Amino acid sequence: MDQRISMVTLGVDDLERARQFYTEGLGWKSTGKEHENVVFFQTGGSVFGLYPREALAEDANTTANEGSGFSGVALAQNTRSQEEVGEILEEAEAAGGKILKPAGDTFWGGYAGYFSDPDGHIWEIAWNPFWQIEEDGSMKLPDA
Amino acid sequence: MDQRISMVTLGVDDLERARQFYTEGLGWKSTGKEHENVVFFQTGGSVFGLYPREALAEDANTTANEGSGFSGVALAQNTRSQEEVGEILEEAEAAGGKILKPAGDTFWGGYAGYFSDPDGHIWEIAWNPFWQIEEDGSMKLPDA
Repeated sequence: MDQRISMVTLGVDDLERARQFYTEGLGWKSTGKEHENVVFFQTGGSVFGLYPREALAEDANTTANEGSGFSGVALAQNTRSQEEVGEILEEAEAAGGKILKPAGDTFWGGYAGYFSDPDGHIWEIAWNPFWQIEEDGSMKLPDA
Repeated sequence: MDQRISMVTLGVDDLERARQFYTEGLGWKSTGKEHENVVFFQTGGSVFGLYPREALAEDANTTANEGSGFSGVALAQNTRSQEEVGEILEEAEAAGGKILKPAGDTFWGGYAGYFSDPDGHIWEIAWNPFWQIEEDGSMKLPDA
């Protein structure tokens, strides 16, 4: 199996609410084709998708019981500056997200905070002075 | 907030079991630095991480109750050929994963199946004749 992730899909309870959060709220641009009850975003060399939770569970042949607070998965966006961390958290809150952890120093020497989207999916916004962000937004590990 | 995902982190119950699944099982190469109880993989322009579920929840200031079967998040890898879908599912099963849905035709005109890793995180392995995979493994949406 190749070492890559082509797509990350979040199961959501209200597709329109989720779409609005990422587009109007955070300023992301979805592709025009919002057919078949799915929303796609180009995120660098991979794709980010929003899809009804029930349908996603059914597609994966599993059950979509209500979540128990924590999905066990965290997405992260690294920022180019420390200041952006707080700014993005505020932007997410204004868009209808919830700040789980305010921006602050981390034990690993960076600066970060967390928010959850309207479906409870969590995002860490982090400034990591040890990791380089390329011009195009991609990130390379120091020893990769 | 920029339209990109820097990192995807899976919370796991047994870090060594998860590390073995992705490295020895699926053949992925982690970075050498497995310090601080975390395992990192370079996945194209982003990073894939394994981290203890409890610690991840604590870091995000949320609670790590037991999951209820479905995390609400699916990762996907698109293949370059239809044949690879079944091959990767078998590889994942041999490595200790579970096939949730065997390879088969999909309603959207592709061919796909799902497996779950030892912590129940789900992966779709999909051949999508409508989406292009670049030489470097990255994927561009037709209308992005």
